[in-house]
Amino acid sequence: MNIVITGGAGFLGQRLCTALLQRGTLTDAQGHPRPIQRIRLFDVVLPPAAQPASPPPSASAALPAVSAMVGDINIPQDLQRALGEGAQAADTVFHLAAVVSGEAEQNFDLGMRVNLDGTRALLEACRKLPRAPKVIFTSSLAVFGGPLPDPVPDAWPVFPQNSYGAQKAMGELLINDMSRKGFIDGRVLRLPTITVRPGKPNKAASGFMSGIIREPLNGIESVCPVSPELRVWVLSPRRAIENLIIAHEAPTAGFAHTRTINVPGLSVAVGDMVAALRTVAGDDVATRVKWQRDSQIEKIVAGWPAACEATLGHALGMQPERDFASMIRAYMEDSQDALAGSKHTSTS
Amino acid sequence: MNIVITGGAGFLGQRLCTALLQRGTLTDAQGHPRPIQRIRLFDVVLPPAAQPASPPPSASAALPAVSAMVGDINIPQDLQRALGEGAQAADTVFHLAAVVSGEAEQNFDLGMRVNLDGTRALLEACRKLPRAPKVIFTSSLAVFGGPLPDPVPDAWPVFPQNSYGAQKAMGELLINDMSRKGFIDGRVLRLPTITVRPGKPNKAASGFMSGIIREPLNGIESVCPVSPELRVWVLSPRRAIENLIIAHEAPTAGFAHTRTINVPGLSVAVGDMVAALRTVAGDDVATRVKWQRDSQIEKIVAGWPAACEATLGHALGMQPERDFASMIRAYMEDSQDALAGSKHTSTS
Repeated sequence: MNIVITGGAGFLGQRLCTALLQRGTLTDAQGHPRPIQRIRLFDVVLPPAAQPASPPPSASAALPAVSAMVGDINIPQDLQRALGEGAQAADTVFHLAAVVSGEAEQNFDLGMRVNLDGTRALLEACRKLPRAPKVIFTSSLAVFGGPLPDPVPDAWPVFPQNSYGAQKAMGELLINDMSRKGFIDGRVLRLPTITVRPGKPNKAASGFMSGIIREPLNGIESVCPVSPELRVWVLSPRRAIENLIIAHEAPTAGFAHTRTINVPGLSVAVGDMVAALRTVAGDDVATRVKWQRDSQIEKIVAGWPAACEATLGHALGMQPERDFASMIRAYMEDSQDALAGSKHTSTS
Repeated sequence: MNIVITGGAGFLGQRLCTALLQRGTLTDAQGHPRPIQRIRLFDVVLPPAAQPASPPPSASAALPAVSAMVGDINIPQDLQRALGEGAQAADTVFHLAAVVSGEAEQNFDLGMRVNLDGTRALLEACRKLPRAPKVIFTSSLAVFGGPLPDPVPDAWPVFPQNSYGAQKAMGELLINDMSRKGFIDGRVLRLPTITVRPGKPNKAASGFMSGIIREPLNGIESVCPVSPELRVWVLSPRRAIENLIIAHEAPTAGFAHTRTINVPGLSVAVGDMVAALRTVAGDDVATRVKWQRDSQIEKIVAGWPAACEATLGHALGMQPERDFASMIRAYMEDSQDALAGSKHTSTS
């Protein structure tokens, strides 16, 4: 199995690479488990080293070759090079590359170029491969907008109220139609907000949902821009990666009229996220969260679902966390693991 | 008011031009009725003459200048020329140009180029105008697919099962997002199948819904490729044009989280359409319909809604026909009018 990960330098791309190295196999188009031979991390910047947290299951198995490639998702030649050809052609593409919600809202043209044109260019390149690859695409609950039931059922329309959501929704339509045509074998995951993310704040409107946990744990104050009563739909990075792989492994016959999956998450009030931080890490840490409303961010985030039924996601075996304290503990564990990891990436 | 009609050489474009000439005014961005000064018919082929069925209401009013322009919707210079500039810049664009369902399914790339890229190029050209124009976009019930309730409520997701529907659904998302951003003031009409269309059969999967009426009335046999029990969602050309104008006239404040309108139609079984033909035109005519199933067409058409609630459409004042016999009679009247019309189009 030859795997390409777009957005391979990003946080989820790196985590996914690590998980695939640990796993060692993926299911091929015929439903048989096959060893992963190559993982290519494709991004606009050089990815940091991909780090397997522990050796692969069989010590005798050859480690997959991990390589990194810097390229532009809007340049067909770059994509062609990333996807490979002949026996080395990609069997699977995890398409994670995107301009995040806050940035796509500020810069409409950039969002269109990366989130819509880039996705389309990638799918067109996939269509030219000798065998239709599996394409796993990360969409978002930001596709939803307007009046929403609670929870949102799978059969609910998308009325995006931000450009990121509109662009992701167009990507969903493309993946679905090109799968129907047999050009690719796509699977779309509408991910809950992923939290707790490591590293620095990004320009996502949802960024504070990591910031209010991560920064206080690092001894830094963090501003929460929304009301403590606001309920959000969240998932840990661990579960997100597990669910990406579940979506990949799901047999094509498991899909009917749509390849789009509302991924199960945890519905939690922002105030309860901070209460969980207090439980896990103590008063001193939790008081580092400062409450200061930002109407622009609150408007975006309050327009997203507080919960989804995620019927198809559950049927495929996807799992959310049970409580937010577990998600904080998972973050603390993963941060430890990241420090202990080792390098496995070469550039090409 | 300066009006541009894309697909201006097409059947609906021509009818719309005639209706606007009869009407003489449209509401401007401030909600005031203004005389129509120019109507430009933009298409890949030269439009036939646009024919007002009767003189404009006030005989003293100057007739709007109607001009035709041949151009490519994917060429920005053509669009810029069509949309005009300064005082002559388009106030309103009726975007009707499209590759129809059957053809978009056969030729994926052509459908993408015209239905998605063409729409986007047009919207980008509109965005560059000095004032955000109204853009009235014709979408279709072909955006719907998968299991459907009967009737389909406004809040129902689109799972298109044909490329035309997927491309129209992407256009809807673009119009909605660019309206939200204030680049345009868009209104999207998901039209029922328009029947009875004059002229020759086109490559739309729904084409038979006109053919089984029009051809028998002209003394020609016509094949009905679906079961007589199949219920379809239809609207006459007259009502379609009326509803395009209603959508234009609706105040911007009449829209909330979406600019997309399921247009009210008539839900009728195909067998009852032929029964209405028998009532209106007699046995000899109705027996010219031959029943011969075409599984490919039936699969597409059976996947569309048999009816929609069309709550927003009704709220805006859109009206369907009461019965199919009226739609046949309207077609017969309109065919007479078309023969009696006169030329009003010049090329530019």
